[in-house]
Amino acid sequence: MSTALDALFRPRSVAVVGASRDRTSISADILHNLLRYEFQGLVFPVNPRASVIHSIKCYPTVEDIPDEVDLAIIAAPRAFVAAQVESCGRKGVKGIVVITAGFKEVGDEGAVFEAEVREIVRRYGMRMIGPNCMGLINTDPDYRLQGTFSATTEPLAGNIAFSSQSGALGEAILALMSQLGLGLSMFASLGNKADVSGNDLLEYWEDDPRTRVVLMYLESFGNPQRFLQIARRVASKKPILAMKSGRTAAGARAAVSHTGSLAGTDAAVDTLFQQSGVIRCNSIEEMFVYASALATQPIPKGDRVAIVTNSGGPGILATDTLVQLGLTVAPLSAATQARMRPHIAPEASTVNPVDMIASARGPQYEACMSAVIEDPDVDAVIAIFTSLESIDSMAVANGIIRGAGHGKPVLVCFMGKVSAKPAVAHMKACGLPVYTFPEEAAHAMWALVRYRQWLERPEGRVIAFDDIDRAAIDRLIGGARGEGRKMLTLAEAQRLFEACGIHVAPWREAASDLEAVEAADTVGYPVALKVSSAVITHKSDTGGVKLSLGDPDAVARAAAEVLARARDTDPAATLVIQRMAPKGTEVIIGATRDPKFGPLIMFGLGGIFVEVLEDVAFRLQPLTDIDAAEMLDEIKGAPLLDGARGHAPADRATLRDVLLRINALLTMYPEIEEVDMNPFMAGPTPGASMAVDARVRIHR
Amino acid sequence: MSTALDALFRPRSVAVVGASRDRTSISADILHNLLRYEFQGLVFPVNPRASVIHSIKCYPTVEDIPDEVDLAIIAAPRAFVAAQVESCGRKGVKGIVVITAGFKEVGDEGAVFEAEVREIVRRYGMRMIGPNCMGLINTDPDYRLQGTFSATTEPLAGNIAFSSQSGALGEAILALMSQLGLGLSMFASLGNKADVSGNDLLEYWEDDPRTRVVLMYLESFGNPQRFLQIARRVASKKPILAMKSGRTAAGARAAVSHTGSLAGTDAAVDTLFQQSGVIRCNSIEEMFVYASALATQPIPKGDRVAIVTNSGGPGILATDTLVQLGLTVAPLSAATQARMRPHIAPEASTVNPVDMIASARGPQYEACMSAVIEDPDVDAVIAIFTSLESIDSMAVANGIIRGAGHGKPVLVCFMGKVSAKPAVAHMKACGLPVYTFPEEAAHAMWALVRYRQWLERPEGRVIAFDDIDRAAIDRLIGGARGEGRKMLTLAEAQRLFEACGIHVAPWREAASDLEAVEAADTVGYPVALKVSSAVITHKSDTGGVKLSLGDPDAVARAAAEVLARARDTDPAATLVIQRMAPKGTEVIIGATRDPKFGPLIMFGLGGIFVEVLEDVAFRLQPLTDIDAAEMLDEIKGAPLLDGARGHAPADRATLRDVLLRINALLTMYPEIEEVDMNPFMAGPTPGASMAVDARVRIHR
Repeated sequence: MSTALDALFRPRSVAVVGASRDRTSISADILHNLLRYEFQGLVFPVNPRASVIHSIKCYPTVEDIPDEVDLAIIAAPRAFVAAQVESCGRKGVKGIVVITAGFKEVGDEGAVFEAEVREIVRRYGMRMIGPNCMGLINTDPDYRLQGTFSATTEPLAGNIAFSSQSGALGEAILALMSQLGLGLSMFASLGNKADVSGNDLLEYWEDDPRTRVVLMYLESFGNPQRFLQIARRVASKKPILAMKSGRTAAGARAAVSHTGSLAGTDAAVDTLFQQSGVIRCNSIEEMFVYASALATQPIPKGDRVAIVTNSGGPGILATDTLVQLGLTVAPLSAATQARMRPHIAPEASTVNPVDMIASARGPQYEACMSAVIEDPDVDAVIAIFTSLESIDSMAVANGIIRGAGHGKPVLVCFMGKVSAKPAVAHMKACGLPVYTFPEEAAHAMWALVRYRQWLERPEGRVIAFDDIDRAAIDRLIGGARGEGRKMLTLAEAQRLFEACGIHVAPWREAASDLEAVEAADTVGYPVALKVSSAVITHKSDTGGVKLSLGDPDAVARAAAEVLARARDTDPAATLVIQRMAPKGTEVIIGATRDPKFGPLIMFGLGGIFVEVLEDVAFRLQPLTDIDAAEMLDEIKGAPLLDGARGHAPADRATLRDVLLRINALLTMYPEIEEVDMNPFMAGPTPGASMAVDARVRIHR
Repeated sequence: MSTALDALFRPRSVAVVGASRDRTSISADILHNLLRYEFQGLVFPVNPRASVIHSIKCYPTVEDIPDEVDLAIIAAPRAFVAAQVESCGRKGVKGIVVITAGFKEVGDEGAVFEAEVREIVRRYGMRMIGPNCMGLINTDPDYRLQGTFSATTEPLAGNIAFSSQSGALGEAILALMSQLGLGLSMFASLGNKADVSGNDLLEYWEDDPRTRVVLMYLESFGNPQRFLQIARRVASKKPILAMKSGRTAAGARAAVSHTGSLAGTDAAVDTLFQQSGVIRCNSIEEMFVYASALATQPIPKGDRVAIVTNSGGPGILATDTLVQLGLTVAPLSAATQARMRPHIAPEASTVNPVDMIASARGPQYEACMSAVIEDPDVDAVIAIFTSLESIDSMAVANGIIRGAGHGKPVLVCFMGKVSAKPAVAHMKACGLPVYTFPEEAAHAMWALVRYRQWLERPEGRVIAFDDIDRAAIDRLIGGARGEGRKMLTLAEAQRLFEACGIHVAPWREAASDLEAVEAADTVGYPVALKVSSAVITHKSDTGGVKLSLGDPDAVARAAAEVLARARDTDPAATLVIQRMAPKGTEVIIGATRDPKFGPLIMFGLGGIFVEVLEDVAFRLQPLTDIDAAEMLDEIKGAPLLDGARGHAPADRATLRDVLLRINALLTMYPEIEEVDMNPFMAGPTPGASMAVDARVRIHR
């Protein structure tokens, strides 16, 4: 179990630096929260202009405190923060929380202050949360640390850890959790993340026995690569739910290829979450719909759900939503149906959804819940109750509770009159999540199943290739750099892919019409003729491509025409003469380097699929063999790879191999910014699969 | 204003038939609700075995009541219902509500009882809600009719009318509305809809001055065509929100074409709502998110939204959601920004979303709300407040209320500690919808904008065609029917389309290889050769199609081969020799007749788009010129119609014309079950646009 942040979350003593006698100040709220929540250690107010605050002796500086101090929560004005942190360092304080705002978030001037504070923290080997944050909470009864200025002064203890990059969202979510009856294990508002990051919290919570679910509200990633690594590991132990705001597309970027223009930042975030097993939530509400289930229920063995209800309409709504989300409304065995029959009204329906009709009471719920939950072909149950004046809702609640169990998740939906409130509270106290709407229960079920699928997913391996010709690639990149170029020519790009072990349709370079004919004779007819230039990047649009040339005459004419036109723009232009590839499924394979997220590998179907529908799949590094296989199936047009419309099926092994080689290439060569094969012709065999165009961009 | 259902919703006297002294009975709940909600007319319990119920004189039968009775609510056992309804008829009762269950919903035996009751109701010219329902409500202070057994005994009066096909959902939603502080105008639980339908309620509420928004929970449509007609008219006066459950796809159907297999029932429902301007809701929650805004706020002039917040995170969440939903986060003018500046903190941001930071109080909210709402480039405002212990939330609420107005919608999101409850109640009382989450406010804004778009949409015209050759079509259909066939041959189907005024690629029918060559010489090379048979429906799969035949020899060989094979299966098989169409954009145009919804017209891109992506648009009759135009733009691949990938743009006028002609054809010929042109080649001109394949199925 990680102890890295114990000085922050498990202190035996806390100093509140900048504590104020003014009860409306933030520091007074912090002190008040610490005392009211009954922190199990010592609390020391620090303020040079007061001797007592909140009935506690106050010290002029941290260094004046006679006892050891583990954690200092600093709410002093910005100008004094650095000196106070220095003082904490000298005192031997190990953990710092800086509440004070006015640092990096206000611009360059604040950034200077922030850098200074961080330097001091690092120098003394302390850990710091903030600045510009609302503090931290640990509900562990051994600590009972409520070190925030939140209005939720007494957070419920529970098994959900929550890290928030926004103070306001943190405040709102603490309030919401109290209202929903969901308990916290720990909480931190991260502020500017000058030292402790979301990644640090993830690692700290990884093996925390009190934390069963981790929630994150993110506005930015400090180190997405590290997040991927850590989150992937943590998500194999406990579910991570994340909200990431700021979905707005990144501004226009200099992109020479489709890969570049399609790989917006939000696609990278989606990919990052997907590859790390993090369940992305689109709203706060969704996050808590999922969290309520994940925090209390076992993970189901499969996706077969039974619904037990006293009302048809809500049962149908749950069914619809489950089916829309791709879950299975399990057919119930004859035996299970027979077990229920004696307990319920003759008009009741024993097929799934089990509609016990409005007269159902506690015993009916218990009997039907027990029957479906013991059906081996049922993995999970949703119980729905529309409360009626004439039915005792507490008895129904007890029926559901008694019928639950067997290691299978049970989600409850109680609709109707608020008179059912005590029954709802009772079920929550017994560890059952209770929703207001049947659709919510269905969505929560989806999250449970989704997490199970993640746990069952093989981990995959990053493949190393020993047949990549690094010397050749070095030469090609070195050559372009030597000329101060960012773009490789078509010929260079094709050579680079060949050096990378990727099959390119047979080709030769030619610098004249004569050489072109010679090249065509060598590679075999029919050929494509394409201009090769580091300057002419849109060769089709400028008449730089001629396809299906069937004889030497046609080649000679085309070569003369294309070269003449090209050399007006680029005197160094040459030609690539390439044998026409056999007809296959056109795909696009590429990669682009996001300044923040690193390489993004892309796969899609070529032509209209990529141009009109933007039907592409992305993955971040490290790309595993499993990732590569999943990319092929993820696109909507995936059935075309199996051979639709008279095409032979594409050789998927080759496609996976090419994706993994592109991944290896971008790992080895940080100077490669973007690569693109549009199209790569995917045929039924490795030999019939080949790149027929190539672009490579490097940074100078 | 419709008075059709006044006997039900505006009675001066109500008899409760089957009233029981047992306080736990449903009838006692109804009587109790009528009295407790203070019905403004007379209430008469009817029960032959009691003389007084609930302190009111009880009569043995309705006919014994000395006064006039407008409405009878019947909760007697099923066996007595018909006799009681008959007695009501004799008495001159005008409105009947049958609460009693056990009718059509339990099968054939109940259906017989139901038919009997309906016959009596019709015979006496009465109107009936139910059977198997929970009753009706009218909150109008002149009536105060609470004629249900709902646990929500005192519904709030307001401007939302609600019709529910499910009693349980009705109960749940009445409870939820009370909880949310949303007021009802009228409510009815429709039960089995033996007489009064959802369509009747829509018409009744169309001009009801107390009803501003109509909500519907539907499980089935009695008459979708009539719904379309009525809802379209009503939705031009007030918004209609609907939930339709039972999205599960209809079972497998005998379909000879893609049109048939793609037109599932849920697609028809989606289309129905879309064409009628009904906003479909996917969950109860979504319905009330929308309803809260539509019931209180003006409809915005455009989609440009300003956000005013005291907290960045929630502001970003609202922005993200608005952008995802296709709305505009309006840039604020320099003047508007300058107006706000003096009122807010120096660190606050005046660009949209306006982040006044955590210190903002009532005056800041008022100043910024006023500034953005008076900006002519802002159509609507979302105000967000994360409550903090130190900020007076009631003052913030008043700031928002004072800043609202100018005929522009304002939606509010209050997050955080429940201490803000009185402030939330205050805003709701002042007519502002208050949401818990910023995403909800953004979704509600979408509904307001969506409704505005509906109001602005031109109505469109159904086009009549006087050049359709009905005699020819009669002959073709008559011929097939004469032979007891459902399928037309290819030749017949092409003749039928031509008679309908649709351009088909030049063709001739041929019965031998000699005739085939003659036909090819006539239409011009290259030609396609296709088998024409009413039996061989999958002609490509059985080698019945040869394309691009360039000379008489090729035609003769192909004809001999195809005919020989075809005649093994169908001795009457002939050939269609058709000139190869010029290359264009392949589209599919068709129609299928849903047993419930009537003709569904379909448009999509051909080939992989329809086969793999199912990227198609549907419309129900009546299809207007506006509908036809919208269908072309609705598909994801629409940009291809503008000419992508080197194709010339498709002539949209021709495509619209063909869709409208297909619509006319199915209107004229109820015996046509399914038609399909897959593909129709869409070229740049009417002359270059033509059907190149045809299928027509009729019922015998």
